[in-house]
Formats: sequence, C-alpha cells, structure tokens
Amino acid sequence: MDLTCPPTQILKKSISIIKSTSDNICAVKINHHLLLPLSLREIKKLISVIHSRNLLAIADLKLNDISATNLVAIKHLWNMGFDAVIVNPFVGYSEGLEPLLTKSKSKNKGVLFLVYMSHKGAKDGYGLDIFKQGKKKKLYLEFVERAKRWRADGIIVGATRPTLIKEISNLTNSLIDIYTPGIGTQGGDVSKSIKSGADYLIVGRSIINSKNPKLVTSRIRANSWLDC
Amino acid sequence: MDLTCPPTQILKKSISIIKSTSDNICAVKINHHLLLPLSLREIKKLISVIHSRNLLAIADLKLNDISATNLVAIKHLWNMGFDAVIVNPFVGYSEGLEPLLTKSKSKNKGVLFLVYMSHKGAKDGYGLDIFKQGKKKKLYLEFVERAKRWRADGIIVGATRPTLIKEISNLTNSLIDIYTPGIGTQGGDVSKSIKSGADYLIVGRSIINSKNPKLVTSRIRANSWLDC
Repeated sequence: MDLTCPPTQILKKSISIIKSTSDNICAVKINHHLLLPLSLREIKKLISVIHSRNLLAIADLKLNDISATNLVAIKHLWNMGFDAVIVNPFVGYSEGLEPLLTKSKSKNKGVLFLVYMSHKGAKDGYGLDIFKQGKKKKLYLEFVERAKRWRADGIIVGATRPTLIKEISNLTNSLIDIYTPGIGTQGGDVSKSIKSGADYLIVGRSIINSKNPKLVTSRIRANSWLDC
Repeated sequence: MDLTCPPTQILKKSISIIKSTSDNICAVKINHHLLLPLSLREIKKLISVIHSRNLLAIADLKLNDISATNLVAIKHLWNMGFDAVIVNPFVGYSEGLEPLLTKSKSKNKGVLFLVYMSHKGAKDGYGLDIFKQGKKKKLYLEFVERAKRWRADGIIVGATRPTLIKEISNLTNSLIDIYTPGIGTQGGDVSKSIKSGADYLIVGRSIINSKNPKLVTSRIRANSWLDC
C-alpha cells in the first residue's frame, strides 16, 4: 500500500483500493507510507476493512531494533490488528529478534524475514560475502539458515532476482513460504517469480498507481496461474 | 523517548519529560514507541515543544528500505518537523540510501548511520567478518567507510562496546560525530563512552523510567564533563 497522496486522503484512498481489489489478493502490506501519517485509530479502521474482506494485514517496518523496542513495536502492531510483521534478520538473535519471535508465536502472529531485497543496492548488504566457521558464504544464505533456525513464518526475496528465488526455494524445500516484492514497477516478472518458486507476489505501485486497480490485480492473478 | 505507557498518555508524558530535562539535553530521539501510536498532528505538536526548547528531533526508524519508500518516509518525517533520521547502511546505496541522502542534504536535514548497535546480537550483523576485494574485514568497518564515502552526518556505536567507539573515533579522526546508545539500562557507561570518543550520549530508559528525569539528566551531564 505505497500511497503517496496527501495525508488527509490516504485512509479513504486505501480503503477504496482494498475494496476494489479484495477478490484478487490475499493480504495487504502496509508500510511507512501509511504508518507514519495515520493515527492508531485510522490504522485500526483500515485493518478492520482488510479483515472484513477476509484478507490479512502485514506491517512492513523492516524492524531491525533492540528487543525492548521490537517488543513495543509489535505490541502496537498487534493492538492495531496486524497479523504479521517484516523484520531484518541482520539485527541478530540475542536481545534482538529472539523476544519478538517468542512473543509473536505465542500470539499466533507471523514474522517474515528479509532475505534479499529487490533494489540494486541490496548487493551491498544481502549480497555480501561473509566468512563463517572458516568458510566463505553469501550473507543471504546465512539469512535463509536463520529463517529456518529461528522459525520464520516466511521469507522475502526480490522478484528482480528470480535465480535467487529458485536457489532459496530449493534450500528450504518449499517449507517456508517465499514472498516476492518488486513485481512490475521495479522490473520483477509475475510468471518468472512463480516458476522460480515464489509463493506470494507483493505488488505495490503497479496496482496503487493504476487507473484500474481491480483489472491490474485480476490480470496479475491470472498470469500467476498460467502454467499450472 | 522509549515510553511504554498507554497510547492516550504518551503525548502528555513525553512533553512533561522534555520540559523537565531540556536544560540538560540537546536533542530528543523518537522511535516506534511514539511514531506508531501517535498521529501526524500529535507528533507535530511534540516536535514544536522540542524546538521551542531549542532541542533537535531525531527520528529513530533505522530505515532500511528501497529508495521510493525511504523518500516517502523522510517526506513525512520532515513534514512532521524532524531534523534528522537514523538509517541502516546495510541497505546499500543504489536505489537504497542514495536518493534519501541527496534529498536530506538539500533540505539541510541530518542522516545518522548505524555502525554497531548496543545489544548482544549485534555481533550477528555488525560484527560479521566479510570478504571485500580479496581481504577479510569486519562489517562495521565497512559501514564506517560508507559513512565517510556517503557523507553521513553522524554514526551510531553502542556504549556497550567502548573499545569499538575508540577504534571508530580514531578511524574517522573525530570528523564524524559519534552518537552512543545503550547508556544505563543496557550497561553502557557515561564516562567510558566519552573517554572513548563519543560526542553524544543517547539515554532512554534510565531517564524515562526514573522518578526524577531532571535529576538523572543533570547527573549524566555532569558525569560526561568530569574529566575535561
């Protein structure tokens, strides 16, 4: 939900897009575009619309804070009604993600790990070569292992890198769902992503900036089933 | 400003703490504790109080998103009145931090880089050994170089690791201000941090949870000048 309209119009426009696309989507990802300008009450209202359409609400904060802050953040998010949160496993386990993971499991909430983002500069982070236990290794592969070990509910891999989606899908034996952002505006392809092993497509601006979000989502949905 | 009171009390309590401590501090760091529950209007009000006391407002989002999202986030933050934002250089430059850095410079806003956080698990990220140009290197040292190369306005190094503060202060020739969180509750020490080269101390819970925030901040301030 990457809306860039004036703050006063965001809630109305968001609800309108959700209502027109709800038959073709399964969840709504909400990020800083809405979380910063909208109040607690407005976010609650938005999520009640999302839930009334049998969709899930994912908070895309890319959390990478100390545990005390992560816990306060998810307390607010779960209170708002969110069903899952996106975190960066870079922040580490002890006094980092550990308490957030435990708390989220106990509340039956989802935690999705960033494993490789969709933009060019992602190579400066996720694509780094690291040295672990005497061996050279790509950092994103370390993040895949963290996702398994720390029991993530899903992993995020940019649609702009379909070969990585395939590699990661093989490594997880399709046991952890792969969410792939970067479809459309950023260059990612629906069919290639699905064929590579993506379970869920994350599409933002191609829908939001379209004159006919319903049509766009129904086309994406249709294309995602083409080869099945 | 790590407040954990009910959302309805946050604004009042925040303003009260700022007013009682403003003589002993130079800036207020605002994070998810306030940004999630408060509305745009409430954050604006809080920042007007901060500015009326001649203090600066820093948004601690630890931003690590794609450029399009980063730009929308800072648009909201600068509109709220914030003077600086904390980002994670892990996200990379191209289509990552580059446009945010350019835009922030043009608006005379500050961008602070995380270089090593204060919690135990920070070693899982900032403490990684990486391979670059055929050489083994600590990732936090790569982040110091990014801070120099990408012209960060400040770097953040946890007070729980004073030897790293010293190492990083030497590497930057004290040309980039070092902000150090983790003082007090997390175990960081005021005097050790200053002696190691920290320019600014970030203190959260020791002030917020105190019965007398004014006294706590005046003591920290006094201790920070002990050896000068």
